[in-house]
Amino acid sequence: MNIYLAGPDVFLPDAIEIGRQKAAICAAHGLTGLYPLDNAIDLTASDASRQIFRGNVAMMDAADAIIANLTPFRGPGADPGTVYELGYMAGTGKFCLAYSNEDAAYADRAGRFTDVTAEDGRLVDAQGLTVEDFGLVDNLMMIHALELHGCPLVTPSTRPVDIWHDLAAFEACVRMAAARLIAT
Amino acid sequence: MNIYLAGPDVFLPDAIEIGRQKAAICAAHGLTGLYPLDNAIDLTASDASRQIFRGNVAMMDAADAIIANLTPFRGPGADPGTVYELGYMAGTGKFCLAYSNEDAAYADRAGRFTDVTAEDGRLVDAQGLTVEDFGLVDNLMMIHALELHGCPLVTPSTRPVDIWHDLAAFEACVRMAAARLIAT
Repeated sequence: MNIYLAGPDVFLPDAIEIGRQKAAICAAHGLTGLYPLDNAIDLTASDASRQIFRGNVAMMDAADAIIANLTPFRGPGADPGTVYELGYMAGTGKFCLAYSNEDAAYADRAGRFTDVTAEDGRLVDAQGLTVEDFGLVDNLMMIHALELHGCPLVTPSTRPVDIWHDLAAFEACVRMAAARLIAT
Repeated sequence: MNIYLAGPDVFLPDAIEIGRQKAAICAAHGLTGLYPLDNAIDLTASDASRQIFRGNVAMMDAADAIIANLTPFRGPGADPGTVYELGYMAGTGKFCLAYSNEDAAYADRAGRFTDVTAEDGRLVDAQGLTVEDFGLVDNLMMIHALELHGCPLVTPSTRPVDIWHDLAAFEACVRMAAARLIAT
């Protein structure tokens, strides 16, 4: 069974190596990891970004499930590119799993990026926009989608020292995927 | 035809009013706008976030298309909750449209939120993660998904003074939706 490995991992300096590690963990559990950087892309081509998109879509369409890395990326929330892929896989009826290496509630974390104040019974950011405050790790659409289309978000019991390379929460997702997808 | 109105608009202080305006624009073009805040939710209930999720999913499943507001939200990228919904609608084969009231390239905008430097031929942020640099307004997955599943991202020719209330780009999306969805 094929697992699409989504996440901002592709933006890491050692993006290829982390993909190899994730694929090895999948293989150890009897699954095949499909990692975006496995696609051969000519990054000098004028349509490089469209080639990447097509390659990722083809991988998702060939996958039976997704494991998305929702660790907050360049702000209080998950990487939008990864979240698009999670939504796409949910829409196509595939099995959806995800993890985040930050387990603080979104509202608590938002204060690191914007002034958060209480106003008329709600939390607001510096632009006056409501800060979602349901005690969830990220936006409710992703968190509850995981319950509906797969398994609840996996977070580590303690924040890893290296949130971009610690794969314990990822491996927990792989175990759940194997339990669900591989006939015993 | 029903259009799901996705966006961080629901977090605005005048969220209900902006929804009314969007629905009125849809109606003027012969379409029915479905806005998340039209769902009756008991926000004091312990499962309020799950009620919101279910209401939004029911609206998406009842919609023929989505118009997503991808204006950058609390960081350099679009609101992940909105992006999840765009992905979900793409996955279910619905017609996808979106706009952003910021037309700067992602790589140019990222510098407002993190130190961006050039390193070994790529742009990297303060954590050493690659900053996507294809000249696109946001992550390539959303931008090219719109081309595949609907119409290219709409951006205003000049940045509106009030990026959270200017609906010119939204109305351009409504016009395109009407042209595609309403038989002449």
